Amino acid sequence: MGRWEPNARERLERAALDLFVERGYDATTVAEIADRAGLTKSTFFRHFADKREVLFGGRDQMADRFAEAIRTAAPEVTTVGCLAAALESVAHAFTAERHDLARQRQAVIAANSELRERELLKQARLGSAMAEALRVRGVDETTARLAAEMGVLALATAFARWTEPANREPYTEIAHAVLRDLQTRAMTLGSEVS
Amino acid sequence: MGRWEPNARERLERAALDLFVERGYDATTVAEIADRAGLTKSTFFRHFADKREVLFGGRDQMADRFAEAIRTAAPEVTTVGCLAAALESVAHAFTAERHDLARQRQAVIAANSELRERELLKQARLGSAMAEALRVRGVDETTARLAAEMGVLALATAFARWTEPANREPYTEIAHAVLRDLQTRAMTLGSEVS
Repeated sequence: MGRWEPNARERLERAALDLFVERGYDATTVAEIADRAGLTKSTFFRHFADKREVLFGGRDQMADRFAEAIRTAAPEVTTVGCLAAALESVAHAFTAERHDLARQRQAVIAANSELRERELLKQARLGSAMAEALRVRGVDETTARLAAEMGVLALATAFARWTEPANREPYTEIAHAVLRDLQTRAMTLGSEVS
Repeated sequence: MGRWEPNARERLERAALDLFVERGYDATTVAEIADRAGLTKSTFFRHFADKREVLFGGRDQMADRFAEAIRTAAPEVTTVGCLAAALESVAHAFTAERHDLARQRQAVIAANSELRERELLKQARLGSAMAEALRVRGVDETTARLAAEMGVLALATAFARWTEPANREPYTEIAHAVLRDLQTRAMTLGSEVS
């Protein structure tokens, strides 16, 4: 077996998710994932630090992209405009071909409390990364944090809507609609009597 | 040494935080904490599951109180009014006598990346608990999650402001002011061009 395998990362991801769904996350080993993908364990470890990273590796890359999109947005772009740019910057992860993978991933995480906690933590990190990028643009601390929470919530909501079985709408359109919807709700909460 | 010690929990907390600040969190053992407090290790473990819980045990109780305050708010109370009730419900943890403990806790957590992650996770759980309590009241999923994020951010901001060395303002007043301030920012973000 050659050292460099085409699409190894994607093959390992598909094999892992198939096995997680079939046998459960805990009962699946890295050796079994590599075997199912027709690759070796050492190839697995060239792509993922451990079994959990098959599920979460993409989230850290997402945090980097979000921050980069916010940092590089034109100076006149509003804070919410920055959130929109951040949401757009990860559209490559939500193509129609990845729809089934994303659904499998959601199901695996939902079935395991440790993985659900990990997902919460990764979302919190995503929020921290966005808030920090907004602060670098000169947005004040509190607004940056509130906006970042809106961004994380927009991503989670858009992702959930995009992965619905019957959905055919592209992720980017959903993300923009979700962000506008969150803005409306923010206005409502902002105007309520406390 | 008697089995039931007066104020054991508080004494253990003060001893632990003093040692964490003096020696660092990692270098401090449960035996040393118990010793400094003039108590036994078994007394420690009657109050805290492990060393980390000295820092985070209060956060889980807080999640329960938040949820309870939201559940028991009168039906006509707005969503933001529920957040205000939740923030008020934990005022007992932020009395003037606990000011120094809270500051020490913040410093210990800020100095340790594992503890910072734990704090993020506890905050995320707090948000989940609030969102769930709002949904039980009939608030729709997305609004409940956005409001819960505002609540978590209000708590963190109010807490940070309350722990500032020069602060003499009571926590409850700060919490209300922070919540109103977040509402103003939510209105601004809601009205921005995306």
